[in-house]
Amino acid sequence: MNDSPRPLILVTNDDGYLAKGIRSLVDAMLSLGDVVVVAPDKPQSGMGHAVTLHHVLRLNAVHYPAAVHQAFSCSGTPVDCVKLAIDQVLHRTPDLIVSGINHGSNASTNILYSGTMSAAIEGAVEGIPSIGFSLLDFDADADFTAAAHFAHSIASQVLQHGLEEGVCLNVNIPKLPLSDIHGVKVCRQGRAYWEDNFDKRTDPSGKEYYWMTGEYAIHDKGEDTDEFALAHGFVSMVPVQYDLTAYHAFQRLNNWSLK
Amino acid sequence: MNDSPRPLILVTNDDGYLAKGIRSLVDAMLSLGDVVVVAPDKPQSGMGHAVTLHHVLRLNAVHYPAAVHQAFSCSGTPVDCVKLAIDQVLHRTPDLIVSGINHGSNASTNILYSGTMSAAIEGAVEGIPSIGFSLLDFDADADFTAAAHFAHSIASQVLQHGLEEGVCLNVNIPKLPLSDIHGVKVCRQGRAYWEDNFDKRTDPSGKEYYWMTGEYAIHDKGEDTDEFALAHGFVSMVPVQYDLTAYHAFQRLNNWSLK
Repeated sequence: MNDSPRPLILVTNDDGYLAKGIRSLVDAMLSLGDVVVVAPDKPQSGMGHAVTLHHVLRLNAVHYPAAVHQAFSCSGTPVDCVKLAIDQVLHRTPDLIVSGINHGSNASTNILYSGTMSAAIEGAVEGIPSIGFSLLDFDADADFTAAAHFAHSIASQVLQHGLEEGVCLNVNIPKLPLSDIHGVKVCRQGRAYWEDNFDKRTDPSGKEYYWMTGEYAIHDKGEDTDEFALAHGFVSMVPVQYDLTAYHAFQRLNNWSLK
Repeated sequence: MNDSPRPLILVTNDDGYLAKGIRSLVDAMLSLGDVVVVAPDKPQSGMGHAVTLHHVLRLNAVHYPAAVHQAFSCSGTPVDCVKLAIDQVLHRTPDLIVSGINHGSNASTNILYSGTMSAAIEGAVEGIPSIGFSLLDFDADADFTAAAHFAHSIASQVLQHGLEEGVCLNVNIPKLPLSDIHGVKVCRQGRAYWEDNFDKRTDPSGKEYYWMTGEYAIHDKGEDTDEFALAHGFVSMVPVQYDLTAYHAFQRLNNWSLK
């Protein structure tokens, strides 16, 4: 008889607890461990690593179709969800945090703006193996079959092998049927940025306002990037660290004259 | 006669355009170039790299006591401010973006939650030399004399030497008189995290809510960290990159069995 407890898995996201993506992720985790859901009560895309300091936070128990142990919606950001889950909901430190499956890419520099990935990064800060999953399809009714397959496979490997301290994973899945995906590639984060082009409009009272829009500009032609892997039919898996120190820049800075 | 234009300097922050810290930073920049302010219309602490995707954004011209070229308050986050300034306010790409001076530390992992530093990181993503400044004093009426001195000195060096592509600076200033500060130290980001301890309360209608509180736990004893420098009377200067790839983790991940 094996008395070791089943792994405890916290599931969160940034599209809100009702999104199809998190339902698919929960289903993919059920055979791997005991699942607890703490996810935002509304879409929180683009919230990055925001935390709620100046407002109160609420947790509400919610019914979940799958056989999860507990499920809560939270009034805060994805990072708030992770923090509240660890401090107030879970009876012990989870063995794994999975975030997503996001509706839309978090490859390359999109990671900076991504609530999905910030939840995973927060997990890494707190010393917990963590993975963010994103599907390259913004559709609310996207087909998560292939994404859920790889979420199961990668989560299973993380539970088995662990992750190095200070490292989490940014996994993106191309919008392809499972049979057309060539496999998983370990990649670096591509260099890219949003060429912003705000849409300036005038409201009925004559005041100007702006909508953020833009074009994603990928100037990085490297064949070792996440964007390259995704464009060639692979799942991209980028190991991500929260130590942002640019060690290569030390020497030049030490030559400056600073008083 | 020198026809080269004066440097164009964008100033933003996360405490809002009315904060004492940004006023001090503007004053410190006036002798270095033409200053344009685009800063949040309200405090945006803890907003991390959040962007506003699902709401409209507003810009309002505001009066500024110092001799700035233009000043706007913005309804969005610090990153929104940088994006709007570049696309809609400035007539050319700025030579420098400075953010702060924040009321409170953004050393070690606080960088992840910091709107001040996210504005600087966004600048780096857009290829513009950028610096975030923070004073280790939360007081709304803190003394920014020493912080403004170092902001001037470091900004001057950045304008002279530039920064490597993909790198910005996270500068923190200890809460000390200028005469007691030993100088500027180039450091790495310390390892630390918030041990969250949510304050659970009950509202008048009987429903529970939470306030985020916690203790900052610095387990990193390294003498090359920002926290060590600050505790020993130095200004800390951490070069920061937005490539989050953990290259050292590639080899282990490539040994996994992923299907």
